[in-house]
Parts: sequence; C-alpha cells; structure tokens
Amino acid sequence: MKNSFLRLFLVILSTVSVFAQSVPNEKILMGFSAENSSRQKLLEAKFDVSLKRENLRDWMKRLSARPHHVGSPYGKENAQFMLSLFKSWGFDAQIEQFDVLFPTPKTRLLEMISPEKFTAKLEEPDLKEDATSNQKSEQLPTYNAYSIDGDVTGDVVYVNYGVPADYEELEKRGIDVRGKIVIARYGGSWRGIKPKVAVEHGAIACLIYSDPRDDGYFQGDVYPKGAWRNENGVQRGSVADMPVFPGDPTTPNVGSTKGVKRLDRKNAPTLTKIPVMPISYADALPILRNLGGAVAPTNWRGALPVTYHLGGANNLKVHFKLQFNWDIKPIYNVIAKMRGKELPDEWIIRGNHHDAWVNGADDPISGLVAELEEARAIGELAKTGWRPKRTIVYAAWDGEEPGLLGSTEWAETHAQELKNKAAVYINTDSNGRGFLGIGGSHTLEKFINEVGRDIADPQTKMTVWERTRARQIVNGSPSARKETMERNDLRISALGSGSDYTPFLQHLGIASLNIGFGGEDGGGSYHSIYDSFDHFIRFGDPNYDYGIALAKVCGHAVLRLANADVLPFEFTNFAETVGGYVREVTALTDQMRDETKTMNQMLADGMLVGVQDPTQKFVAPKPKENVPYLNFAPLQNALVKLQESAKNYQTASKNKQILPSAQKSLDQILMKTERNLTRGEGLPRRGWFKHQIYAPGFYTGYGVKTLPGVREAIEQRDWREAQEQIAIVAKTMENFAAEIDKAVSLSQSK
Amino acid sequence: MKNSFLRLFLVILSTVSVFAQSVPNEKILMGFSAENSSRQKLLEAKFDVSLKRENLRDWMKRLSARPHHVGSPYGKENAQFMLSLFKSWGFDAQIEQFDVLFPTPKTRLLEMISPEKFTAKLEEPDLKEDATSNQKSEQLPTYNAYSIDGDVTGDVVYVNYGVPADYEELEKRGIDVRGKIVIARYGGSWRGIKPKVAVEHGAIACLIYSDPRDDGYFQGDVYPKGAWRNENGVQRGSVADMPVFPGDPTTPNVGSTKGVKRLDRKNAPTLTKIPVMPISYADALPILRNLGGAVAPTNWRGALPVTYHLGGANNLKVHFKLQFNWDIKPIYNVIAKMRGKELPDEWIIRGNHHDAWVNGADDPISGLVAELEEARAIGELAKTGWRPKRTIVYAAWDGEEPGLLGSTEWAETHAQELKNKAAVYINTDSNGRGFLGIGGSHTLEKFINEVGRDIADPQTKMTVWERTRARQIVNGSPSARKETMERNDLRISALGSGSDYTPFLQHLGIASLNIGFGGEDGGGSYHSIYDSFDHFIRFGDPNYDYGIALAKVCGHAVLRLANADVLPFEFTNFAETVGGYVREVTALTDQMRDETKTMNQMLADGMLVGVQDPTQKFVAPKPKENVPYLNFAPLQNALVKLQESAKNYQTASKNKQILPSAQKSLDQILMKTERNLTRGEGLPRRGWFKHQIYAPGFYTGYGVKTLPGVREAIEQRDWREAQEQIAIVAKTMENFAAEIDKAVSLSQSK
Repeated sequence: MKNSFLRLFLVILSTVSVFAQSVPNEKILMGFSAENSSRQKLLEAKFDVSLKRENLRDWMKRLSARPHHVGSPYGKENAQFMLSLFKSWGFDAQIEQFDVLFPTPKTRLLEMISPEKFTAKLEEPDLKEDATSNQKSEQLPTYNAYSIDGDVTGDVVYVNYGVPADYEELEKRGIDVRGKIVIARYGGSWRGIKPKVAVEHGAIACLIYSDPRDDGYFQGDVYPKGAWRNENGVQRGSVADMPVFPGDPTTPNVGSTKGVKRLDRKNAPTLTKIPVMPISYADALPILRNLGGAVAPTNWRGALPVTYHLGGANNLKVHFKLQFNWDIKPIYNVIAKMRGKELPDEWIIRGNHHDAWVNGADDPISGLVAELEEARAIGELAKTGWRPKRTIVYAAWDGEEPGLLGSTEWAETHAQELKNKAAVYINTDSNGRGFLGIGGSHTLEKFINEVGRDIADPQTKMTVWERTRARQIVNGSPSARKETMERNDLRISALGSGSDYTPFLQHLGIASLNIGFGGEDGGGSYHSIYDSFDHFIRFGDPNYDYGIALAKVCGHAVLRLANADVLPFEFTNFAETVGGYVREVTALTDQMRDETKTMNQMLADGMLVGVQDPTQKFVAPKPKENVPYLNFAPLQNALVKLQESAKNYQTASKNKQILPSAQKSLDQILMKTERNLTRGEGLPRRGWFKHQIYAPGFYTGYGVKTLPGVREAIEQRDWREAQEQIAIVAKTMENFAAEIDKAVSLSQSK
Repeated sequence: MKNSFLRLFLVILSTVSVFAQSVPNEKILMGFSAENSSRQKLLEAKFDVSLKRENLRDWMKRLSARPHHVGSPYGKENAQFMLSLFKSWGFDAQIEQFDVLFPTPKTRLLEMISPEKFTAKLEEPDLKEDATSNQKSEQLPTYNAYSIDGDVTGDVVYVNYGVPADYEELEKRGIDVRGKIVIARYGGSWRGIKPKVAVEHGAIACLIYSDPRDDGYFQGDVYPKGAWRNENGVQRGSVADMPVFPGDPTTPNVGSTKGVKRLDRKNAPTLTKIPVMPISYADALPILRNLGGAVAPTNWRGALPVTYHLGGANNLKVHFKLQFNWDIKPIYNVIAKMRGKELPDEWIIRGNHHDAWVNGADDPISGLVAELEEARAIGELAKTGWRPKRTIVYAAWDGEEPGLLGSTEWAETHAQELKNKAAVYINTDSNGRGFLGIGGSHTLEKFINEVGRDIADPQTKMTVWERTRARQIVNGSPSARKETMERNDLRISALGSGSDYTPFLQHLGIASLNIGFGGEDGGGSYHSIYDSFDHFIRFGDPNYDYGIALAKVCGHAVLRLANADVLPFEFTNFAETVGGYVREVTALTDQMRDETKTMNQMLADGMLVGVQDPTQKFVAPKPKENVPYLNFAPLQNALVKLQESAKNYQTASKNKQILPSAQKSLDQILMKTERNLTRGEGLPRRGWFKHQIYAPGFYTGYGVKTLPGVREAIEQRDWREAQEQIAIVAKTMENFAAEIDKAVSLSQSK
C-alpha cells in the first residue's frame, strides 16, 4: 500500500514535469497519432501505478519453493497455478501439453584410477543458509541433458573452453585427443559446443567443470558467504546440438504432440556422440592436479591453485560411466490470450519460461514474475473496460532448460498460424539488478529505445536508457564512447540463442526482442541447487526494483505494440546495422587474407619454427590456401537498395497521414517484413534456422553470427559456399527492401 | 677438446661460405678500413674458437658454491679468485675496495593477532634436490635491504602492485591506508617504489609478497619439480629509493672510500621511511584470506585460491617488527685492464656484478662467467702478441644487489677520469636461454645490430639477430611486425635501471649497452636460496650455449670497439628514436587533454557516479585541471637540427677517407657525444641522474622514462616544469647536434 501511494505520487510529479520540460515527454509515440499517443501514455501511467513488487516476491517464493524441472510434480503445479492466475486476470488461458524426450541420470560415476585414487562427489551439499537446498528427493542430479550413455576409461586432456581454436593450440603442441577423455572449463562458448568439437577431434568423453577463475572465488566470495559458485557447485545444462535445431531431439520441425512420429534415438542428430557430464571445481581439481604434459598456454589457466597442464601424457587413468532413463515426459506451456478488439489476428506475444533446473529463483523465475505482474496489470486495465487493439498473448514456457522445448514445439505446432498472425515476440528470462540489456530485431531498435527512454532507473535519477548509455560512455573504448555519444539510439545486440526467442525469430521470422537487467547482481548460482529464493533476495534483485522496471519496459512495449495505429517498425537502424555486418564480413576476408599470407610466409621462411623453444614440442601448422577475393558487390548493391527503401519509409511514415483504411494493410506488410529475412531452405547444413541475418553460431552455440551463411562459410574457408551465400543474402535483402517499398506506397496513399 | 675441434671446423666452413655468399659477410665493419675489417674478422674468429663452455660451468659451480652477498667471506674469496684469474690471463688487475652501509636483519617478526593467530615463517626451507639450499649459517635471511627499523601493529590494506594508479583505485573505493600496513604483490614496478608510494599515502609499513599469478604455480611447475617459485620462496631485494640515487645511501655523488664523510643515517634520503619486508605466498595467504572490505578489482586478483579483498575493514590486526644491524661492510670490485697500444686513454669498459643475494648462480653468475670467458679469450689473443688499439677494462662489481654499490662508488670515485677516458660501457647480468635482448644508447644501435648479425644462435640455423627479429615478426602486433620487417636494424630498448650501467650511462654520460639472452629459461629463483647451480643447470642454460653466445656478442663488441679505426658511433638511429620520443610526449599531452576533458564531463553530468553500483562505496575523483597546450616547438626544431647533423655524419663517415691524423680527434669527439646528453644540474629533484634522454622512472624504478624531465613533468601535471624541461632538453639536443657537426667537419678533413 505504501509503495503504491509513493508510486502514484511520483507519477503525479512526473506529469507535472511533462509540462515543465515540455518537448521530450510530449514527443508523439512511434506509430501513434498525437491524440492516441497521449491516450497511450495515460494508459501506461495507469499500468505503472498498479505494479506491485510484493507480487513478484510472493510469486517467486511460491514458484521456486520446490524443484520444478521438466516432468516434475511441482513444475506441473506451477503451470496450473499460473493458469489460474491468468484466468483470474481475465485472460483466455490454457495449458498446452507436449510430450518430449527428457533423459534423467540413472548412473553417474567418475573416478580416477591412477596416479591417484579419487571418486568424484557429483553432489551439491545442502546449506543451512539456503532453505530449499536440502530438497534432495526432488532435485535433479548434476548432469548434462542429452548426453548419451557411456562407459569409458582413458587418459585425460585439458582443452580449455573446448572450442575449435583451442584444438588448434593443442595440435601445435602435438597433443591429440583421439581415444581420450577431454576436460573443458565452462565458458568461451555455449556448453553444447564442447562435446561437439571434442567428437570432431576424436575424444571419447567430455567433462565440463566450472573453473573458479570464471565462476567461483576468483570472481567474488562464494556461497553462502557471497553470491559466487562454491567448490561443490555444478552447472547443469543441456548439451544437445542446438545450433542444428532446438526442441525435442526426436521431432525436428514438427510439434511433439501426442502420437507424433519420432526419430529413433540412435538417429537423433542433436544428441551428443559421447558421454558428457558437468562437475564442480572440487571434483575437477584432483584430475587437473595430476595432468602431465606441457604447461597450458597462459590464457588457458584458471584460478585453481595448481599449474595447469595439458595432459595427454598417458599418466592418468580415469573411468567415467553414465546411464540415463530415456523417458518421454509431458511439458506444460501456459498460453494466455487477450483478444484484440480491432485487429485480433495481429498478435503481440510475450514469453518467459517457467521450468528450472532445480528451484530456479533467478533462472527463470525472476523474469517470469515480472511477466506475470505485467499480465496482471494489463488484466486490471482490461477490467476497467479497456481492450487492446491487437491480440496480446502471454506465454509461460515449459522445458526451456533442456532445449527450448516448450517454445519450439509450440512454434512448430502453430507455425502457419504464427506466420500469419505474429507481429512481435518479446522474451525475458533471468532478471537482475543493474543495466538494461536488449537484443533483438533491429527493425524494432528505434521502438525499444523509445520505450527505454521513458522508464526511470530504480537506483539513480536517470532513466534505464540513460544509465545503460552512461555505462557505454564511461566504460567504453574511445571509439565506442564516441559512437554512443553521437548516435541517437543505443545499439541493441543481435540475437544468437539461449532462450525462447529462437524459434520465433530464427525459425519463423517473427521480429523479436529479448530484454533483461543485470550487471550488478551476483552470479554463481546458475543451474545449481543454490539458485534459490534465499540466494536471490541477497544477491539478485532484493527489492524487486528491477523486476518492476522489467515489467514496465516489457509492459510498455506490449501495450504500445498492441495499441499503435501502425506497428512501430522502422528500417533505417536495421539498414545501418546490416551495413555494419556487410563491412565486417568484407573486412574479415581481408584480414584472413593478410593473416594467411603472413603465416604462410613465416612458415616458408622458417621463422615460425625458429622462434619456438626447441625443448618444447611444436608441430608447425600446414600452410593454408590463400584467401581469394570474393565478389561482395551483390551484398553491397542490395544494401544500397535497402538503405534507400528504409529512408523512404522513414520519410513516408513521418507524414502521419496514413488513412485508417490503409493502416491495416500497412500492418500486414510490416508485421511480416521479418519473415522476408528468412529463407525456406534455411542455413547450410541446418535448415531449421531460416533467418539470414541472425543465427546462433555453429561453433558458438549462444553467441550470434550475423549474416551467418556468409560469415560462417568465410570462417570455415569454404569460398565457394561463401560466394553462394552472398548471392542468397543479397537476394533476401532485396526481397526485404521490396516489402518496405510496398509499405512506402501504402504510407503515401492518402 | 671435441668442442673446440667442431668449432674450428665450423669456422672453416663459414670462411668458405664467405666466398660463396659474398656480399653480406664481406661487408666492411663499421669504423674499420677494408683491410682492418678483414683483420678484425679473423681476430674475432680466433676469439670464438677459443671459448670453452666447460669454463663457464666450472666457474659457475665454484662462484655459486656458497652464499656470496656483500660482506660475506665467500664474496671476498670470489673476488680474490677472479683477481687471480684476470692476472693469469695477462690483465693488469686489482681489487678496489669501498666501505658501504649494508644493513642485515637482527629481528624479523610478522604475526597476525586477529581474526586468526598466525606467525609468518619467513624462511625458505632447504630441498634435497638443491645441494646448496641447506647452507643456513651463511644465507642472508629473507629481507629488503635499506628498510628502516620498525615495530607496528595495525589493520592491513591490499594495494595490488602498490603503484600510484593503484592508490587512485583505492581512493575511488573510499579506502585510506593512513595508519595501516599495506601488502603489495611483487611486479608492476621495481620493488623500492612500493614503500615509497605507500609512505606518500600515509601507510605505516609495507609487506611485499610474491603472488603465484606472477611468480609461482600459475606460471609453471614450482621448484623443485619445475623452475618456478614455490610457496615458501621469497624475493629478497633492495628497497632504497634508487630513482633518487643509487650507491651507498650515505655517500651520494662521492665514492665511499675510507674516511669519506657520510650522511647521518637519519638523513639518508634513499632509506625507506617505513619498515618493509618481502614474504612468500605461503606467508601472505593467511593475511589475504582474512582481509575484509570490498572485493579487489579484477586485474588486482592473483592466483591464490581466495577471493582477493581490499581490506581496510578494521577486522585485521597484524604485528610487524623489524630491526637491523646497521653495519659498514667492505665491498670488493675486481678491475682488470689491458692497456691499448695506440689509444690507451680511450677505454672500453665491460662489467658484470659478482655479488648475489644468496648463491646467485643465475643472478649474477650466469652473466659473470660469460664475461670471464671473454676476458680469458682476449687474454689468449694477447698471448699471441696481439694488443688492442684502445684500453679494455674488465670489471666484476660487488654490491650490485643492495643498490649498484660497487659500480656507483667506483664511477663516483673515478668520475673525472671516466669522463675523460671512457668510450663505451657494456654491461651484462643474469643470462638465460632464448632470445638476444639489448638495451642501451641509440648511438650504438647500428653498431650492436652489426655485432648481433654475425653470431649464430645455438639452437637454430639463424643468427641471434635473426631469431630475435623473427620473434618480433611472429609475435608482434601487425604494426610492430610491419615496422620490424621494414626497418634495417632491430630497435634496442632504452635503459632505465636495474643493473650496473646506471652510473656510467645516467650519471656520467658514457654510451652504454646492456646485453643478455632470455625468454626460454625458467624464472622463479630470483633472489632466493633456490637461485643455485642445481636450478640453473636444469632450467637456465644447461649447456651454457647462451653463455657462449653472450661471450661472443660482448666479446665481439669489446674487440671491435677496442680496435676500430674510428669509434663506430652512428647518429641517425638515435635521431629517429628521439623523434619517436618527442612524438610520444606530444601525444601524451593530447591524450591527457582528451581524457581529462572526458572525465571532467562525465563527472559534471553525473554519468560517472550514475553507473556505479550504489551498494558499493564510490568516491568520485575530483575534477582535474584542464591540460594546456604546451609549446613543443623547441624540441621539434632541435630534432630537425639533430636529424640533419646525424644525416651529415652518416654521409661523411661513408667517405672512409679520414686521415689517420684526424682519427684520434674524431674519436675524442665521438666518445664524448653521450656526455652532451647530460646536464650538470641533473633531473628535477634528483640531480644525480644527469642524462636528459634516459632515466629510470621516479615511479617505475627500473622502467625507463625517455625524455624524463619532460615526460615526468607532464605525467605529474606540472605544466610549468614541463615547459621548462622542454627548453632544457631542446638545448641538450642542440648541443649534442653541435658535437656531431664537429665530427662531421673532422670526417671531411682530408
């Protein structure tokens, strides 16, 4: 009550200041007429005052009270609880179930046989400071989902982060992982990349541990004294080959509805080819301490109190055994709709997952409770008679953790309807204290900047937009600082993968945003039993200040998108951003050409070998094929066209003279522009990923590759494919520009 | 015997290849006529074949057999042993004694009283793998020389490397070291800087420990398994304020000969103002583990298995007591001369120290034995009737470790004679396996490049010059790589301090070189009892390959300088290098101006405060005075003059038509050119340092500051002084150019 009163007071103050400051706050919102813009601002002010932080806290406590992973009783209870909430707020809500392959461990054994006897604990102990940490019977053990079964014994090689560049370093040192177990540290890529690359190099198993350098005492005090991962903490997580496709590994491209035809598990391409398991740094230490062979390169060394060696010296014998229950489990998406009164077939979709690896107070409940509060506040608005112009869909996804299961299966099941109706998808996941972070479609960059500019930061007198901008200026390099100061909008990042936007953006071509706060909350609980309510209220967002801020950013975004006269897409920022990508891939070939030439020269004249320490083994890399000059002209020409079209739409939309009769047709074009950035055949060797501008990297997993077809072909030195992909992406950009041109014609039709 | 034979064989082969390859090896040596050049090459070939690695090994074993620090019986024995060697080789040798203040510990106590009881061991245990490590009765304890006595109890603050920038970080976090004990890690500056800066900020004592990140298991396996410092290893060393002046702290500017008038110890400006002691990481760990307060910045964190905190939280109570025997001890320089037959009053001086902190097989014996072998080989040449044209002086300095005592007192005592007679000083110190490293006067850059181009690398088919160049190309940044590939000579580094060249170069203005190999030998024994013969033959230069290579580089340099028709000074490389320094100091003010403006702006508009985590203490720095534009024109004009003069001398010296009668006069000018880079008044606040181009940094200690008067005034934001110093350095450069002009006139006098 006290809080609401204060908030109301602040709103009144800020209303006063609108008159005082005049221009900035009187700015007409993108996509709105002046009149509708004022009305919308009032609506958002009402939305804001109704937000209650107590709800976030209560729901987090409730939803994270017990482990709620896929297939758990409490996961189902949570879904039913949310269903009843959505219904009580006036949404047309339902639970949509899918049945998915979800392995859980039956046997986990890791033991060193020589030179030292040691059996890994593979267990996170409960702590008296953490009330839910003792729920042993309901907790999933520490494991990596979609690892295959296995029973191997062998020598061990330390592979750093286990990405391709790391294996190049090993090769230079004459170290071969064939027939060996690799141990990689978490970080440097998404975890699923590590076993994939290990298999490519012939390893028989993969251990992944959390090094205290990246995720432990080096970063800060460990739990329960501080937020960071203690020596027994383990990061669970999926290791399916998600850059090929996410979702149920046995049902690519189709929803895993009842009775769906499944791939035989043996042929499921995204399951690992070798057994994989995550371990704590306490369990990793005895292995790392005993590794022989050369000392690891400087930037491979973590914070354990040992000299990091590469291993592969045949002085270790480690036995590793894994067996899983390969069960089909139900997952429960909660889908809540509020039908648009004018354009019911234009959907603004808002989602956050609800499943966790264990209790998941931070991941995903911190984002989920903000989403719920948004929905409740929108429900309140609706109770006063207001209805959105477009349909609003609130979703709480199940099965995100094992592989974006709930969102992917839903998106695959409803693909045709979504392609027709979805305008925008807005995703959140974990949320913390600190700075606004936004990734997404650059056609929404200007829009989401506008939203951020209006939200007050809870800790300062800045807006959340100003504070993020200030950080880029204060901490940025001189050139980044300059750009931030001169650019009108903050750059949003391109999306790779790692949360539920992927099926919407990259499979279906629905313009998407992913939004969250962070940077000042303490890490270290990720995917462990210590990701708990107790941890979150000490180290996350103790007062839910940023939970409320997130509800405001996303709530305003949803309400504006739902109510705008014309969907607020904008293309000049997109065109400028893609221009940057084109320059990057061009520069990349130039840089690779120079490096290849230099390296080949240094090989040929003996310099590279000559500077090595002859007491250390060194295997000179083979000379590489010279990098040809590619024809980037199709991309460059398409870019010019794109920039023109974008500019024309900007000019046309400034008119604000669009006839109401044209608005609907315009919307239909705008909401589908992103679809034109996809290609039915998808990317080479991973047809599920259809977006031609953004994709998770084949070798990064979460990290984005922009212009992925072109960029990855260049990175893989496949010049023929690179040239083909240049043509494909250029054509994609031309089609996209043609859609903008249609929007321009409609905007001009008075 | 076998080795000598092989060597002779190689020389014959290389003589043959002279005819085959022709030009490169037939190149006439700098400063020689064609005929004399051929003769000189034959002399150097004879020198080379007489070098015996067995001698290096035998002498190292002998000289490092027992601790031989200042004042030790074995130090005196070593001096006498070397005296007899030099005499046996035909040198006119003598021991020159000085009496110096040399404190040794009487009481050393470090204990934590709370929150945990702990008494530091302050002791390096002997190891069965290291034969001399058990010589307890003769070893100096672990301590820092020239710390004052003290007995303090207080809270502790971790100050990272303890340099000024670190205190700025502490201030931002609201941490004050006044009345507190600081603990700094080794590295980031010369150790004597740490207590000096601590005092400036009000600390009452200073502990310095070796963090395993920089000097321990993070770097590689620790001793005795590997080369690196183990948990009990301690780095002894001087903490006198040597950037003010080196040598005996009570006899600045004058030799500490018998009966010299000494400063009262209380007034000796280079003694520390607070007690200081080095400790091992085993002794540091309990203190660091118990520090409270904020978590240290990321790049402050070392490799101990703790979260690094800043302390200053008043939860620690540490008691630290130090008492010294403040004795005057004798030191013994060994000075061996071979009189020049034509120009006896032109001296080529070659030195390496002989004192160590303990057994010092690496530091300094590895360099000393190469020097001895050079002298022996030159003695052999002399026994065949050859005599150098100029006088050669071989020196083995005592007391380098506590503060360049032997070299400084000798240089101060013989200042006038040295100013008249010294042409060049060539220094070595520790030597290891790997790459040729050269620092020194850039007037000798071309000369020493020529020397390095002729010496074969022991491990590859390259010359030592080619291998160092290859490393710069292979490992360099693209721009550094480009420069190395395009430049005719390898750049030599400018000298700061850290070994015995300092009194010659920076006090007297004698052109100097400092030469050594390294980069592939294992560190970690520095200034500990483990710097032993056993350590060196496992991890240093096991076969003395690089000891021989060093003897060749320095021996050739000595012989060429001693025999050249005209001293091989050259000025275009110097002028180009100084041009770079002028551009650096100009760019520095521009950069500081931009940074100041940006920082002040970020302060004024609240951005800097706004981006801080409000749950962490943050004290915003005060706005800084804007950086004015300085008048660099005097420097730039002087530079133009210098470049012209240098170019003219280059042209003139290509004539090779200098009359023998003019050679001597020319030599007299050339050998004193470097004197013209000094100024009688010396640098501001440290008049002992007279060189205007090179000095150890006031806040770096070993690290060089080029154009120190100008650069340090700018860094300290003393704009008035910077402007004054610009004028002074410009005048210095003009005077120097005028001397070159005289050399040009003489060169042209046919």
